[in-house]
Amino acid sequence: MAETSNRIVVIGAGFGGLEAAMRLGNSAARVTVVDQRNHHLFQPLLYQVATALLATSEIAWPIRHLLRRYRNIEVLLGTVVGVDKDVKTVLLEDGAVLPFDQLVIATGARHAYFGHDEWEPFAPGLKTLEDATTLRRRILTAFERAEREKDPARRAAWLTFVIVGGGPTGVELAGTIAELARNTLPGDFRNFDPADARVLLVEAGPRVLAAFRPELSDYAAKALARLGVEVLAGQAVTDVSSGKVALGERVIAAETVIWAAGVQASPAAAWLGLPPADRAGRVKVEPDLSVPGYPDIFVIGDTAMVMSEGRPVPGVAPAAKQQGRHVGATLLARLAGDRTPRPFRYRDQGSLATIGRKAAVVDFGWIRFRGGLAWWLWGIAHIFFLIGVRNRLAVALSWLWIHTTGSRSARLITQRDIAQRDPAAEDG
Amino acid sequence: MAETSNRIVVIGAGFGGLEAAMRLGNSAARVTVVDQRNHHLFQPLLYQVATALLATSEIAWPIRHLLRRYRNIEVLLGTVVGVDKDVKTVLLEDGAVLPFDQLVIATGARHAYFGHDEWEPFAPGLKTLEDATTLRRRILTAFERAEREKDPARRAAWLTFVIVGGGPTGVELAGTIAELARNTLPGDFRNFDPADARVLLVEAGPRVLAAFRPELSDYAAKALARLGVEVLAGQAVTDVSSGKVALGERVIAAETVIWAAGVQASPAAAWLGLPPADRAGRVKVEPDLSVPGYPDIFVIGDTAMVMSEGRPVPGVAPAAKQQGRHVGATLLARLAGDRTPRPFRYRDQGSLATIGRKAAVVDFGWIRFRGGLAWWLWGIAHIFFLIGVRNRLAVALSWLWIHTTGSRSARLITQRDIAQRDPAAEDG
Repeated sequence: MAETSNRIVVIGAGFGGLEAAMRLGNSAARVTVVDQRNHHLFQPLLYQVATALLATSEIAWPIRHLLRRYRNIEVLLGTVVGVDKDVKTVLLEDGAVLPFDQLVIATGARHAYFGHDEWEPFAPGLKTLEDATTLRRRILTAFERAEREKDPARRAAWLTFVIVGGGPTGVELAGTIAELARNTLPGDFRNFDPADARVLLVEAGPRVLAAFRPELSDYAAKALARLGVEVLAGQAVTDVSSGKVALGERVIAAETVIWAAGVQASPAAAWLGLPPADRAGRVKVEPDLSVPGYPDIFVIGDTAMVMSEGRPVPGVAPAAKQQGRHVGATLLARLAGDRTPRPFRYRDQGSLATIGRKAAVVDFGWIRFRGGLAWWLWGIAHIFFLIGVRNRLAVALSWLWIHTTGSRSARLITQRDIAQRDPAAEDG
Repeated sequence: MAETSNRIVVIGAGFGGLEAAMRLGNSAARVTVVDQRNHHLFQPLLYQVATALLATSEIAWPIRHLLRRYRNIEVLLGTVVGVDKDVKTVLLEDGAVLPFDQLVIATGARHAYFGHDEWEPFAPGLKTLEDATTLRRRILTAFERAEREKDPARRAAWLTFVIVGGGPTGVELAGTIAELARNTLPGDFRNFDPADARVLLVEAGPRVLAAFRPELSDYAAKALARLGVEVLAGQAVTDVSSGKVALGERVIAAETVIWAAGVQASPAAAWLGLPPADRAGRVKVEPDLSVPGYPDIFVIGDTAMVMSEGRPVPGVAPAAKQQGRHVGATLLARLAGDRTPRPFRYRDQGSLATIGRKAAVVDFGWIRFRGGLAWWLWGIAHIFFLIGVRNRLAVALSWLWIHTTGSRSARLITQRDIAQRDPAAEDG
């Protein structure tokens, strides 16, 4: 084939895209990685930035620095607005056109409001570093407002935190906000006791951590209750507006509502002119992760609806990484002239979730455990998966410090002026 | 006197206000500290956040946490809009009114554009954490744009960094940006060599670091030149617009211009209905730091024009701290019934400035030195002055890491979407 046949474009440098690119590092391919942000983000710890436990720089790394040693890889900061799957080009927002021979789309997902996008200003989600610092500002500002509020009902609303969605992110957020109120903040305020803050975790399904076995869900619910979190399972949010959340008839006055439910895939299906495969807007792919009819275009991670052994692959970091590695290997084989389709098979490496700084649940399939040991395992695993010795040291130091002293190092209200006091106005 | 005579309000929790409040901690006074931000900021290291060396949380601490052990001190997050010096009240933006018996105004200063505020969007300054992350975004984005730019002249403009003002902040910024380009970034880009970046330091006066002795200024200029910084002393900026800086006839094409010149005091003079004492808008104070005719209102730090032994006190952190301690002691004496005016006397503890990560200048008056030893002294002094063991450890780790590996941990482009690509548009 001609020299131009090995141009590979990877869109998105999350877990999947980064793995695919690294697999192609120092190969004969000419690889271009495009991302609209300059950093790869360790999303599983994003909730710790939102709750002032970790600094932003502890969980994010410049993409081009991560790929610097691969001389055949170029990193572009840019926003993709379209893909021409027949002419084989990627169109960027600034008008640039990137031709490709093979394309990997790994553009992830955002939280979804199930057709209620009007709730977003009142119930922001957590997918980016900016989301995390926005949530951090809102949570910390709520306590500041409570300190200045003289009306008891208004103060109670500032001290009520509702987390919607009982998956790992929701459970982890609820646990750390409860600990913030009960362990970190007492003594800092004069006009109320931060321990009076209410943290509610609302889950539409029958139990939290639905991806785990029921006994681990039960354990998590009890551990949350011990931290003071009120778990409202089997209750769906029917409306969110400024300062209020409705669960059917019941209306909760809460100034801080956090959305940790639902998934909306990136608009890759629209770029490709394909019908979305499901409500989340994902792209249906062949067993080898390529788009039906377009064997040179792959979609992986949260953007793809992938089946493995008859079951849908969950939208978790290890699955995205495995898919990235798989597509990388497929593309390497093609560079060597082997175009045999290679079906992807998901290996479930188990699930982990923490509840505060003392409890966790771990389910490896063949073994399940919970409690303090699970927490340590969770911590060690996450430090191991962080990129770079420096970040491992920094996060280990932060956690050790928090664990020993209870005080949090990143309690910063940034980005907006304090003058901007209406939480609805700022995003609306 | 009545019980209400010991209400003390401190506006601003920078170096001066925090010291004053701490001095009054656990006294008979009822102290309210008002700040428009929730954090005390270690401004001398702000340039390291702007240049991706340190994380935001390493140099900022929640004010109320710093003051938590003083049960007589209340911290309010709020923006002051006025002071009634006769009725003795402070007015907040949200309409709240804080009565006081004694008032300490310690609201600092911002950079000034000498009547050219229209330059600000093109040449942002560095006073707050948001300023620092904005500068960090601009500096890092400039390299990203250079990677995508095909026109050599446009690329050169993206790779030209102009710092206006040759004081310690300007010198430190120029040195660290030069090191970023020459030590940290090479290898990360494919389409240009980051070491080709130009860093220009423009100083209207005859030499950089004018507050130091001429031989230390000379040394600093030579150390900057060794790092590749072009020092343009004796040249005044006559215009700044999008992508351009004019120094009289000479026009430099530069997409990144940073303002490190000039000082504009907070609007305390306007609040008090007093004529500003100088061009920077500072408030003239009596030898005991009180406002003439208003012995119960003190103005300290960068907001005050203070004379000590016939000479103006410089606007540096140690001076603000000394003034805060002085006013704190004065107020304590008043609580004990002693209203004798106590004149403030500034003790010059010397000046320090770094040039990159290997050189520094130190002038203690009785001894001056420079070079590697001065750098270590600078580093140790700054770690010592940081608040809290955790931050000392974290900053020491960050610096050790940077010093050993040359790589920077906080290379994050945040806050704005990458879609926003016109640096002039975002602030304009």
